Amino acid sequence: MPAFPDNLKPATDGASILHKERLGSHLPVQELARHLFDRTDFLSRQERILKIVGNEPLFRKDRQLNLSRPERYHLGLARAKLLRRLSVKHSWTRDDDEMAVYLVDDVSPYMLQMSMFVTTVREQGDEAQRAYWLPKIEKWEIIGAYAQTELGHGSNVRGLELQARWDPESKGFVLNSPTLTASKWWNGSMGRTANHAIVVAQLYLPELSTSDGSTQYKSYGPHPFMVQIRDMKTHQPLEGIVVGDIGPKYGYAPMDNGYMLFNNHHIPHSAMLARYNKVDQATGRYQKAGNPAVVYGTLTAIRANIVMHARLVLARAVTVAVRYTAVRHQFRDRDGDDKGPELPVLDYPTVQIRILPLLASAFALHYTGEAMHDLYRRTRAKVESGDFTKLAELHSTSSGLKSLCTEIAADGIETCRRALGGHGFGGGSGLIQLNNDYVSKPTVEGDNWMITQQTASYLIKQMQAAATGKGAAKSSLEEACREHLLHRHAFAPLDVLHSDTDVVEAFRRRALDMAYKAYRARVVEKKAWNSLLVQLHKLSRAFSQSLLVGSFYDALACNDNMSPGLREIMWRLFRLFALSTMDAAAREFSTARAVADHDLDLLPGRVQALMTEIRPHAVNLVDAWSIPDFLLDSALGRYDGRVYEDLFNRAHRLNPLNEVTFNPDYSTAEIVMGRKGEGIDKIVAKL
Amino acid sequence: MPAFPDNLKPATDGASILHKERLGSHLPVQELARHLFDRTDFLSRQERILKIVGNEPLFRKDRQLNLSRPERYHLGLARAKLLRRLSVKHSWTRDDDEMAVYLVDDVSPYMLQMSMFVTTVREQGDEAQRAYWLPKIEKWEIIGAYAQTELGHGSNVRGLELQARWDPESKGFVLNSPTLTASKWWNGSMGRTANHAIVVAQLYLPELSTSDGSTQYKSYGPHPFMVQIRDMKTHQPLEGIVVGDIGPKYGYAPMDNGYMLFNNHHIPHSAMLARYNKVDQATGRYQKAGNPAVVYGTLTAIRANIVMHARLVLARAVTVAVRYTAVRHQFRDRDGDDKGPELPVLDYPTVQIRILPLLASAFALHYTGEAMHDLYRRTRAKVESGDFTKLAELHSTSSGLKSLCTEIAADGIETCRRALGGHGFGGGSGLIQLNNDYVSKPTVEGDNWMITQQTASYLIKQMQAAATGKGAAKSSLEEACREHLLHRHAFAPLDVLHSDTDVVEAFRRRALDMAYKAYRARVVEKKAWNSLLVQLHKLSRAFSQSLLVGSFYDALACNDNMSPGLREIMWRLFRLFALSTMDAAAREFSTARAVADHDLDLLPGRVQALMTEIRPHAVNLVDAWSIPDFLLDSALGRYDGRVYEDLFNRAHRLNPLNEVTFNPDYSTAEIVMGRKGEGIDKIVAKL
Repeated sequence: MPAFPDNLKPATDGASILHKERLGSHLPVQELARHLFDRTDFLSRQERILKIVGNEPLFRKDRQLNLSRPERYHLGLARAKLLRRLSVKHSWTRDDDEMAVYLVDDVSPYMLQMSMFVTTVREQGDEAQRAYWLPKIEKWEIIGAYAQTELGHGSNVRGLELQARWDPESKGFVLNSPTLTASKWWNGSMGRTANHAIVVAQLYLPELSTSDGSTQYKSYGPHPFMVQIRDMKTHQPLEGIVVGDIGPKYGYAPMDNGYMLFNNHHIPHSAMLARYNKVDQATGRYQKAGNPAVVYGTLTAIRANIVMHARLVLARAVTVAVRYTAVRHQFRDRDGDDKGPELPVLDYPTVQIRILPLLASAFALHYTGEAMHDLYRRTRAKVESGDFTKLAELHSTSSGLKSLCTEIAADGIETCRRALGGHGFGGGSGLIQLNNDYVSKPTVEGDNWMITQQTASYLIKQMQAAATGKGAAKSSLEEACREHLLHRHAFAPLDVLHSDTDVVEAFRRRALDMAYKAYRARVVEKKAWNSLLVQLHKLSRAFSQSLLVGSFYDALACNDNMSPGLREIMWRLFRLFALSTMDAAAREFSTARAVADHDLDLLPGRVQALMTEIRPHAVNLVDAWSIPDFLLDSALGRYDGRVYEDLFNRAHRLNPLNEVTFNPDYSTAEIVMGRKGEGIDKIVAKL
Repeated sequence: MPAFPDNLKPATDGASILHKERLGSHLPVQELARHLFDRTDFLSRQERILKIVGNEPLFRKDRQLNLSRPERYHLGLARAKLLRRLSVKHSWTRDDDEMAVYLVDDVSPYMLQMSMFVTTVREQGDEAQRAYWLPKIEKWEIIGAYAQTELGHGSNVRGLELQARWDPESKGFVLNSPTLTASKWWNGSMGRTANHAIVVAQLYLPELSTSDGSTQYKSYGPHPFMVQIRDMKTHQPLEGIVVGDIGPKYGYAPMDNGYMLFNNHHIPHSAMLARYNKVDQATGRYQKAGNPAVVYGTLTAIRANIVMHARLVLARAVTVAVRYTAVRHQFRDRDGDDKGPELPVLDYPTVQIRILPLLASAFALHYTGEAMHDLYRRTRAKVESGDFTKLAELHSTSSGLKSLCTEIAADGIETCRRALGGHGFGGGSGLIQLNNDYVSKPTVEGDNWMITQQTASYLIKQMQAAATGKGAAKSSLEEACREHLLHRHAFAPLDVLHSDTDVVEAFRRRALDMAYKAYRARVVEKKAWNSLLVQLHKLSRAFSQSLLVGSFYDALACNDNMSPGLREIMWRLFRLFALSTMDAAAREFSTARAVADHDLDLLPGRVQALMTEIRPHAVNLVDAWSIPDFLLDSALGRYDGRVYEDLFNRAHRLNPLNEVTFNPDYSTAEIVMGRKGEGIDKIVAKL
């Protein structure tokens, strides 16, 4: 009897189906994979690290979805430690470390150490502070967190309530939380793991009141301080500090996001990171020592990474969706033979329209992320040499792109998951944790609706400069705005159905049209900023879309060494991305006189035709993204197509709930057969 | 020191903020609550049941998010049993039972018993079967599941693989799973709880082959069988049955969705539910005994319930979003005083545009659900008396509405969650489990993309009948199609900015325009059905939106006893729902010549103006939905506005992770301070 299911085969042989899909497409998978990843050694690194992490029992995920949140933190810390030890053992570089975290696919309680913690010390610490702290951090003698956001303030950093008052007697600072909302909140690694933190607090310095001669404190705004928060031996919070984990969240189970309150806690003068601003220890006076605008550069680099991460996340969801919907067969053709075979659900346009534009989007995000990194590197060099002119453009551009790209990825995961039908709701999808973790991204590092103001504001300024400026334009964008103003009354519709350059130009024209209208509303008609927020959000979105389309186009147009077979399919993906994006906002293209209504009417048909052309290559296209099964952890998306065997195996052999027999009779409180109420009492005690 | 945080107050006093919000609106909360719920005694029932379930420790949720999935099933079963015992003790009606489940807000492993299990016996069992089984079910002597979907087939019921072969010797059936994909899959309550199940299998009857005289089996399609699956004493699976729980899912943690395989398992002749079809026990011949179309009636009733459920789910998410964004203050007015107060985030149009149209949608869903129930009751009476003419309309209408309404609610929860900013990702939102559970709804009871074909197909048939029919129209929809065909070349744009009836008419005209084009493509141009699927999906969506708008309008226009103050705000909500929906698909209204482009350009401004008018009443409007704090389980959405106190309390006092001190040093494998590796070994063993 136990052998009975072992001998059954699925009616649908996923393995041979995917084999045929791969043979049926001429798309050169290896060439595309190299094209995507060769610049950064990504693939060889992935292979090398996978061999190491793939063999560790601690990184197994077979039954991980059965763990509780406290268990997930325990496990997360154990994994973070093991990764650290492996890193030392194998002399991993920073890129290797990041690859290992990516493959293990578990948020690490050590995450802040080599990101915001070390970066802030490096960028904002003065020479002495860097010399003192950086070796300790790099040797992991201390574990750090970054404590900026508070219970009452996230986006509005200037509104932070935690106070750092200068104490002339001790020549140091006193950290104090005047209210409950001043509690630090959300700060990763701080809840249970870190023993140090960069703490951002309002700096208050004493001043002699001119009126009555008493001492009053004046605020100088938020500043960063390096603070020890726990005892290095006992790991207990230091006196005057209340710190803990904020509890379960939507995702990020292994991360100990924390809260922290200070009760007149003294820290030394050296705690304040003093590269750009400092307090003179002798006089207690505030001194500016440089331009802190450089920190926006860091934020921008983080945002370029966010876009590059988004494209891998999206590629992962699309990989699962494409492979499973190729294997999954459901319904015969309604117009076909009554005895005909069931169709792969990926053949249905209603499935294609959800998955294939997202497949194309992954490439759009890829080329845009690459372009952002390029721009960052170029701008960064200028900033280091004291030239800040490009910074505003880069920062504002990155805001809109962060907003749009994380939204595409977050919504894309869920769209893919729903396209999987019933099995998409099951643990075998491999998309549950991905979804739960990733939906944080539209909020962190700048709320997606809020930060689009930066992009819009920048565009309005450019349009204003173009409208009023004389002499040479100060930027290529201002130049484009001038052109737009010059010709906007005489635009002829572009031929987006036949010309790829016209597609790029149409996106640009629509964005500039919206920029012009926003400029009119704000600058000429002087409307209240807040009354324009929805319009500004749409403007940022349109501009960011034009950047995505432009980057995609440039990457293909400038590439000389792609094989013709690959090139042809890549251009189709470009068109699918651009035209499906255009179709979703068609009216804006019409209003901007960028595309004729007649052409817009034809977009849905054109999109469907493109999907039909791309469909035969879908499996090979996702293969090129090279996401290993170890990372996918998906019965539905596994490379070999053995979907049903894996789903059944997870249910029948790996599910701990099936090891217990329950008592279903409602009249007794006994839950597990023969064990009275003992088990449930323990669970109720946890409520 | 421990007392320090206890003495802190939040800088933002949520309690007084919500108090002022409530005083500042003239909206009569009690009147609106009665208007929404009086027809069904909902509010008095809620109050009565809440008093009972609110006091049971087993229903506490303070730390529930910390439980593992296996613990959640244990707890779910314990809760289901307690609810059953309470039901007996207090002589609850079916409506009372449902209210209790709604308030406890945990999917019950007993869920199928009084829904699909009993309903199928009642509707498809013959008289003897009903007399035998119904008392057993109603006394809970047996616990049931409904086993239809399989690993390989969900939507396509005809493709089910499980076989029920007639065995002439034993005069019974033999259940056999020929493949792995024939395994029953997803069936609720079956994995660990049920001892019986309605099993849907392909009926095979032996026939004498005319060619060689041998016996061959012929398929008669899927039929339902009542099958005992576990021993009534030991609760072990019966011989020949392999059954278990399929494992962790996106949501539905306490539900034991199951799998089940049969190895030539014999069941008696009486197992086949025989109201409409049966197999003659003596001859083994198939006999039709009635019209099974009646089962579509059940499906339709389920869908009406889904819409009514969707509106409460949406109201719950909107309640949290409105209350929290009223309490949450962030940023000063950019155009205002530098020392001015921070603004409630609900004052920002970019927050309003995400929340307030969803608030209006909850009402649209409410009136539509009511209308569906009315139509169902009227149609049901006709069906019982043998008249099936209305059934097709009801069924096809309910398909499109189920699709649209569950999408609005599922996407709406996530939109609200993101509008909460950072705290929306935390456990205090109260939206985590709601989100995880509810995203199953776009897939179950008919996949949202698939079932829209039914609505579109029906509309095409109506348009075809109108185009070709003579004499009196057979339905009001056909009549409307005729009118449309007659006037479609001479439509003047409607005045949607000034006339509410024109708004309703514009939605209708746009839907009929799309129906006409679908009819042309399919019937006249004879395009392949599958090539039209995206277009048909859009058609169903447009038609369903016109039903929502129409129901909302009718409910207000036909109501004579609403106070003027309430009526005024309800009409604004109607317009906000209709015009924001119209704005999102503006081009379709232009193409259909329903609304002039100039008016469409004005929609965003009009929507924003409506939101400004509704904003002062937002808190009172969500109060009217009467969702108790016990159900909300939300720090952000609590009635008294004490958001920050509650968030801090959950983190600081209710978080089990804070009871443990960890060892952060990577060089040691010790996780919990002083406990070596013991704890983690147990966790790794669970991987």
